[in-house]
Amino acid sequence: MSYLDRVARFVPPDLGAYLAFRVDGRDVGHIAPAFARHLAEFPRVFDIDARTVTLAERFSDFGSRSEAVDGVVRALARNGVLSDWREERYRVGVSFGAPPLLAIERAAVPRFGVRAYGVHVNGFVRGSDGRLGMWIGTRAKERGIAPGKLDQIVAGGQPVGLGVLDNLIKECGEEASIPSALAARAKPAGAVFYTVERPEGLRRDFLFIYDLELPADFIPRNADGEIERFELMPLEKVAAIVQESDDFKFNCALVVIDFMIRHGFIPGDHPDYAELVAGMHCYG
Amino acid sequence: MSYLDRVARFVPPDLGAYLAFRVDGRDVGHIAPAFARHLAEFPRVFDIDARTVTLAERFSDFGSRSEAVDGVVRALARNGVLSDWREERYRVGVSFGAPPLLAIERAAVPRFGVRAYGVHVNGFVRGSDGRLGMWIGTRAKERGIAPGKLDQIVAGGQPVGLGVLDNLIKECGEEASIPSALAARAKPAGAVFYTVERPEGLRRDFLFIYDLELPADFIPRNADGEIERFELMPLEKVAAIVQESDDFKFNCALVVIDFMIRHGFIPGDHPDYAELVAGMHCYG
Repeated sequence: MSYLDRVARFVPPDLGAYLAFRVDGRDVGHIAPAFARHLAEFPRVFDIDARTVTLAERFSDFGSRSEAVDGVVRALARNGVLSDWREERYRVGVSFGAPPLLAIERAAVPRFGVRAYGVHVNGFVRGSDGRLGMWIGTRAKERGIAPGKLDQIVAGGQPVGLGVLDNLIKECGEEASIPSALAARAKPAGAVFYTVERPEGLRRDFLFIYDLELPADFIPRNADGEIERFELMPLEKVAAIVQESDDFKFNCALVVIDFMIRHGFIPGDHPDYAELVAGMHCYG
Repeated sequence: MSYLDRVARFVPPDLGAYLAFRVDGRDVGHIAPAFARHLAEFPRVFDIDARTVTLAERFSDFGSRSEAVDGVVRALARNGVLSDWREERYRVGVSFGAPPLLAIERAAVPRFGVRAYGVHVNGFVRGSDGRLGMWIGTRAKERGIAPGKLDQIVAGGQPVGLGVLDNLIKECGEEASIPSALAARAKPAGAVFYTVERPEGLRRDFLFIYDLELPADFIPRNADGEIERFELMPLEKVAAIVQESDDFKFNCALVVIDFMIRHGFIPGDHPDYAELVAGMHCYG
């Protein structure tokens, strides 16, 4: 087992097997044929041919597009086609900076294969000897996705209408009771992204990564029930877990390896170095 | 002008317009049709068809392959087809970790479109107020590539038979008179890579990035004539130059932007953030 085992699973699938999801003339997602057949039950909302699912042009602004798609995905949730409803909407657009074309319920995002954005925070402590420790959370057993898996101290999806740092500060409060003045010290440190098929659909995630150095006497406490417990681990222990087990949530392992690369914990002459760095940044 | 202007030039070309360069059954490079016609003058060494340039199988080990190709590229250099001869060989293989199949003179590497490896060092100083300064070199006017352009404090190609850190320590001595004990403190911090067409051919570069924090009283001095002068600049000044001018060598600008992202100097809500991070890591 190795770091590369955690990264190599992020193999971009053959997107040629998917139908394009087109909104206002722009391709914004990839839909599996099986899900397209469910969408075909809503011909007032979607025009579907062999290659493309097009949101009907009569829905011509953010509000009407979002409302039309929301009606469909709520019906599919009632029919059991969609599960893990979150009541949280993600923006859909050609890029993160571009004005969103519509918003879609989070649970439906992997089914439409649109890009999803999130923020992950590495909460770390620098010992007096310079060695690093990292706060690791264990996800609650009740969660719909990756129950009981290890996670960053704070991580959350990026909902529509909230800036990345504002979202980080909010999540820091809810997930780890980090005061906002301390959370605001988090430093942006790049991003990790991938396209991969998961049981919930096509994940095209872009994770904004922040590093937050915490005082030695700070103890995180979960406030929203999503994290069962926190443990401050020496980075060596985190490295051993990532390499030898599947205990980390699939994308959280990637974030940990990215941290280890950026902080020089993984040596430049590691035989898999090139593949590890490349694997953090698979756009699709 | 913007950071994205520096990154957006790294558009991967259509590699379908190139012939594959095949060695021992493995595709290791991409050769433009015009250069393939020059290679066709050496039928004892290369088997060429419409899609592929294959190194003749009779050259079956590292030594004989390297010698056969070296004979060809020296003849092409005499004929003026190749210029900027370096008398320095780069390894060619399926990955950096894999045993090299052959070695090729550095000047010929972009013509065979094989991946090239280098190491770039960000030499930075942390002020008493926490603000960062960066040592920037100006390349000598006599250099074959990018004369007079701005560069990292130390950067060099990765020749065959030398480890990345060993090469870094050697280059630190030659380019900036950094003592080896100080150079050895450099921390690996990831990589920047791209595939792009340049006047010299197809550049498929993988740059190992190291950050080296230097004492406030250290002054670099060039020892090999490759750097004309060094200047310690506040990071704000480096940012202004990168955004507003083309003064940095094309790939050194990328390394600077990567540093600014990793150290939180570019905010996470920068409108081009996703494209900047993606642009650092275009494999091809």
